[in-house]
Amino acid sequence: MTFLSGIAHRSATSTHRPLDFRSDTVTRPDNEMRVAMSQAEVGDNVLDHDPTVRELEERAAELLSAPAALWTPSGTMANLVALTVHLERGDRFLAPHGAHVLNNELGTAAWLAGGMPAPLDWDAGPGRVSPESVRSAADPPNRPYYALRTSLLCLENTHNAAGGTVTAPHEHARLAAAARGAGLRVHLDGARLWHAAVALDVPPGALTVGVDTVSACLSKGLGAPAGSVLASSVEFVERARRVRQMLGGGMRQAGVLAAAGLLALGRIDDLAKDHANAAALAAGLIELGWDVAEPETNIVLARVPDLRLTLDGLAKLGILATPMGGKVRFVLHRDVTTNDVTEAIYRIKTAG
Amino acid sequence: MTFLSGIAHRSATSTHRPLDFRSDTVTRPDNEMRVAMSQAEVGDNVLDHDPTVRELEERAAELLSAPAALWTPSGTMANLVALTVHLERGDRFLAPHGAHVLNNELGTAAWLAGGMPAPLDWDAGPGRVSPESVRSAADPPNRPYYALRTSLLCLENTHNAAGGTVTAPHEHARLAAAARGAGLRVHLDGARLWHAAVALDVPPGALTVGVDTVSACLSKGLGAPAGSVLASSVEFVERARRVRQMLGGGMRQAGVLAAAGLLALGRIDDLAKDHANAAALAAGLIELGWDVAEPETNIVLARVPDLRLTLDGLAKLGILATPMGGKVRFVLHRDVTTNDVTEAIYRIKTAG
Amino acid sequence: MTFLSGIAHRSATSTHRPLDFRSDTVTRPDNEMRVAMSQAEVGDNVLDHDPTVRELEERAAELLSAPAALWTPSGTMANLVALTVHLERGDRFLAPHGAHVLNNELGTAAWLAGGMPAPLDWDAGPGRVSPESVRSAADPPNRPYYALRTSLLCLENTHNAAGGTVTAPHEHARLAAAARGAGLRVHLDGARLWHAAVALDVPPGALTVGVDTVSACLSKGLGAPAGSVLASSVEFVERARRVRQMLGGGMRQAGVLAAAGLLALGRIDDLAKDHANAAALAAGLIELGWDVAEPETNIVLARVPDLRLTLDGLAKLGILATPMGGKVRFVLHRDVTTNDVTEAIYRIKTAG
Amino acid sequence: MTFLSGIAHRSATSTHRPLDFRSDTVTRPDNEMRVAMSQAEVGDNVLDHDPTVRELEERAAELLSAPAALWTPSGTMANLVALTVHLERGDRFLAPHGAHVLNNELGTAAWLAGGMPAPLDWDAGPGRVSPESVRSAADPPNRPYYALRTSLLCLENTHNAAGGTVTAPHEHARLAAAARGAGLRVHLDGARLWHAAVALDVPPGALTVGVDTVSACLSKGLGAPAGSVLASSVEFVERARRVRQMLGGGMRQAGVLAAAGLLALGRIDDLAKDHANAAALAAGLIELGWDVAEPETNIVLARVPDLRLTLDGLAKLGILATPMGGKVRFVLHRDVTTNDVTEAIYRIKTAG
Repeated sequence: MTFLSGIAHRSATSTHRPLDFRSDTVTRPDNEMRVAMSQAEVGDNVLDHDPTVRELEERAAELLSAPAALWTPSGTMANLVALTVHLERGDRFLAPHGAHVLNNELGTAAWLAGGMPAPLDWDAGPGRVSPESVRSAADPPNRPYYALRTSLLCLENTHNAAGGTVTAPHEHARLAAAARGAGLRVHLDGARLWHAAVALDVPPGALTVGVDTVSACLSKGLGAPAGSVLASSVEFVERARRVRQMLGGGMRQAGVLAAAGLLALGRIDDLAKDHANAAALAAGLIELGWDVAEPETNIVLARVPDLRLTLDGLAKLGILATPMGGKVRFVLHRDVTTNDVTEAIYRIKTAG
Repeated sequence: MTFLSGIAHRSATSTHRPLDFRSDTVTRPDNEMRVAMSQAEVGDNVLDHDPTVRELEERAAELLSAPAALWTPSGTMANLVALTVHLERGDRFLAPHGAHVLNNELGTAAWLAGGMPAPLDWDAGPGRVSPESVRSAADPPNRPYYALRTSLLCLENTHNAAGGTVTAPHEHARLAAAARGAGLRVHLDGARLWHAAVALDVPPGALTVGVDTVSACLSKGLGAPAGSVLASSVEFVERARRVRQMLGGGMRQAGVLAAAGLLALGRIDDLAKDHANAAALAAGLIELGWDVAEPETNIVLARVPDLRLTLDGLAKLGILATPMGGKVRFVLHRDVTTNDVTEAIYRIKTAG
Repeated sequence: MTFLSGIAHRSATSTHRPLDFRSDTVTRPDNEMRVAMSQAEVGDNVLDHDPTVRELEERAAELLSAPAALWTPSGTMANLVALTVHLERGDRFLAPHGAHVLNNELGTAAWLAGGMPAPLDWDAGPGRVSPESVRSAADPPNRPYYALRTSLLCLENTHNAAGGTVTAPHEHARLAAAARGAGLRVHLDGARLWHAAVALDVPPGALTVGVDTVSACLSKGLGAPAGSVLASSVEFVERARRVRQMLGGGMRQAGVLAAAGLLALGRIDDLAKDHANAAALAAGLIELGWDVAEPETNIVLARVPDLRLTLDGLAKLGILATPMGGKVRFVLHRDVTTNDVTEAIYRIKTAG
Repeated sequence: MTFLSGIAHRSATSTHRPLDFRSDTVTRPDNEMRVAMSQAEVGDNVLDHDPTVRELEERAAELLSAPAALWTPSGTMANLVALTVHLERGDRFLAPHGAHVLNNELGTAAWLAGGMPAPLDWDAGPGRVSPESVRSAADPPNRPYYALRTSLLCLENTHNAAGGTVTAPHEHARLAAAARGAGLRVHLDGARLWHAAVALDVPPGALTVGVDTVSACLSKGLGAPAGSVLASSVEFVERARRVRQMLGGGMRQAGVLAAAGLLALGRIDDLAKDHANAAALAAGLIELGWDVAEPETNIVLARVPDLRLTLDGLAKLGILATPMGGKVRFVLHRDVTTNDVTEAIYRIKTAG
């Protein structure tokens, strides 16, 4: 009964302490972060430039090896702003199947940024596409005026829906080069780029070579309450600032949140713990007979016979997870301890 | 040298009479059609309802087994109007890979109709998808508010990019039922639905069972200079009329073109000749060693070693074809005779 | 009882021969035009360039003193294409109150072309704005990034809603210069530019000085069944051709309609008769005590006590007119003779 | 020299302590607010419902006499979300001249929410429109399908660009009734509705009678770092939540900011001080010969001979103000004391 289909039908709700594996967005700011927020120097970030936001943007740009960066209220907005600036109305853009911009942003890449998505098969491993597939998906020479124009490649590192899979620097560099050779610009959705950098033990900037824009999240895993950054050229960031304002992302004393973001950027190395916990959770589930791929970072995907029943069964045990591409997704993060992982395995083991 | 790569490099342009296999849109109206146009009774189709347009719409609705129909200046507009009415901003829609709405309408299904496309693999043969794939691509139950919403299935019969492949009535009906069972509406891009009906020897209405909207072309193959129809419920057609006006498709004395469309609708059976010619062309090419699939209707796709060189080589011989999904596409139509097919084969054979 | 409110309540519908003053779009092609259409040389205007369309575009460009022109299925599409190319998403554009792009194109200048309209008061006469008002509505220097950007002035000559009022060459030139001096581009909606040229006895090109784009109609007054042209630079026309295709305005053997358009362009001088008829109608109505401004071209506007009752009363007499900005609008055109005007006055006079 | 044109040309920058009258958005959170933020109970406001956000939304709904409310990161987003839900693509909406949704949101009401704006003249006093003007701007009966459809009236209370002018409850109620009688829905931009309520000494709910949606700001004047609320029916709020997510306004532990918002809602009565300071500033400027209307709330507008020179002159004196509709705008707020007002007047008086 290890897939918990049985207990899903029991009527009682969970009396267990909840173990929340739904997302690394659920982390709550700790005390140090709360103090930093309460002491932040702030200004009107629309009229002027809030000093703490400015400091965060400079620090993020540096980490991502970009000339400039822009803070946004969410990762969805960071991607949306980037695509809106990149794409002319109707432009086609390439992205690996299951990319966040395709599946998790409510279609805004299409109706709002104006792009026609072309999903690429994972021909180079889970969540990974090959330079050849990029080249062959780009436009042929002599494209006539009445044909779709392809202008952008969107990458995602780590790739969430594939289970937090990592693209290594040399692989990334070849993809970016293939794109540029085919006349495409490159946007990198780096919501969890920090995880990739930690897993590979390289600086984040090693993974932004050849990109035009990169978004990265301060809230997923690093623990800030909210906020992302979009890094690019100075000129692109100025255009992005205007689009951010259009979307209603111009927030006044945003320095309160930026202060948390600055602390978050100092905690990137802590992610190694989440990766270790993910490995432990995967190992435990495999031992229980689950069909689980070895995690590359902080995400564990399990293929189960009946997704809905398993999710409900887990919920009965106080274990919160989410569906992702037909599988069960567990995300490890700051607010899940190694003990919590052990506890989760124990609950599943003893549930049947 | 049968793929003509060699002659592509010769400098002389073709001195041959051109044989135009680029599209069935290139047909010129014949004399009977020109007379009909010149004698059409007309009115202001924006303010009133041009009488000939009205007659055409009634005739088209009848043929397509729909309560009502709307004339549009082009097939692209018929599809665009349908999707704009069907989709709320950001809605996801399903369509088989390579569908015209995905690849050949300049991204307007996304930026203008507001849809996020989800291409479906051809898991039921070339250009064909299975009811299972429709069901599994639809939304899970209990979709949360922050998740993409899927609301529409777009079918295409015949499927152009797959080589004019046909979906049969029982197969179509099962797809439509699967879609409706999953809460999806159904749009059928029937630009060449007439070809499917002729190939299957069924009335066109046998192929519109369970759809909410169907577009069909008067210009592709049937020989009208321009124009398509969008058939649906009376209420949908009224909403579509408003969107047509928005897009600038409100044309005044459109009865001139509708008169040609009415004649075209009487010529559906003539398409059998194009199918026979397609079979002959395919057979001839296969004999010359080309890699060609047996055509189901009026389109012949050939896989060649070097697409650009072959197209250029054909052009040198006065044979005009187009690239389609990495292959050479030949389209048979009213203005290509059986002799023309023989002549084309002869030119290729003797070119090397 | 001259405003016909009384007879509006009578139950019988009109038994009179209808006199259609609703719009100059209601004209039906005459025999010469029908013959021209039936003999037009045509081609696929999407894949190639239909030869008759090309000839029409060249002739229109010449008349409008522009390097190039693009045929479109309607005037609404010509304006929409122009604005879509001109405007970046969110750009503000100026236009005189009551302009066709503001009031008669279903909001597409906003949601589709992406513009935020700023209507200008008629501070220089009916339908006319002053260079000062253009300058003061443009952006201030040092516009911050979070402020609306104004990029375009739309003019309309003749101005339909103001009653077909004319802007003279020197007045037009000063407006265009004011716009350019303020960093704005200029689009001229010249749906009835021919009327302005005839009224002023100048070539149409005298009224396009300093504009970036001009649309002009082949169907309003000149008698072609449908079609407009958009004239501009070669580069702009190439971008416009792509947008036309996006909107579904790519029509195949459009030469059929272009042949009518070519004839229409040879009939510009005939508009003088419509202007004379408008003057006669206005004079007749004034004699009957109606509140009518002296027409400048082919449109007569009458202010009446109760718009709906008067329109219904006119309809009872077989006189068809439309509401426009709270007034009754009569439009004179090819299919209304001088006798028809006399007859209309007579019916009104004897109706009470 | 009281308009400071002279000192604008001096080269030295200001050595004065800055007095910031640019906007009531510049306020910094005070200590009590910082403590509240640092102690806020939080959750993932996308996946769940952050408890502090929920509490704020309930409190705001209550104050605004609405069944439900939604927190948004900015007032621009609150308005944009409301308009996006209200408007079908191309719908016309009415708003008084100079409204924030027309002039200060980068055209997003048009290109993004899809609306065609129709500005209404201030025929009932500064920033105020009459019920008659609403009725006459609405659609006529029997609107044909090809005509613009008007669906929404946007009000703004207080009206920023008119100088913080107030619409009283009975006046508001008549406007809302006129709109509803004409088939329009009503959105109220209540960014500074609190100011109107304080000026009129009525509860805010007295000013939302008959509206479908109302936005209100927590950051303007009340001192929260960021955030607005959109109040409406439960069903509308659910649709709005989805649009907020689309725009990237889904923020995770937003309770940090909501805690500040909750405190802000308890400080509405403090706005009376800002109104008094505005009155004092206006009186002082009038004494110096400036052309200033008596302020109704916290905004002072001054008409000056040369806007740019005066703004620069003020800046030299360390007095920061902004241009608004061709005038100088001073906004009073929490971080400007009565002494600051006295000091500002003194600096201007002695500057010449």
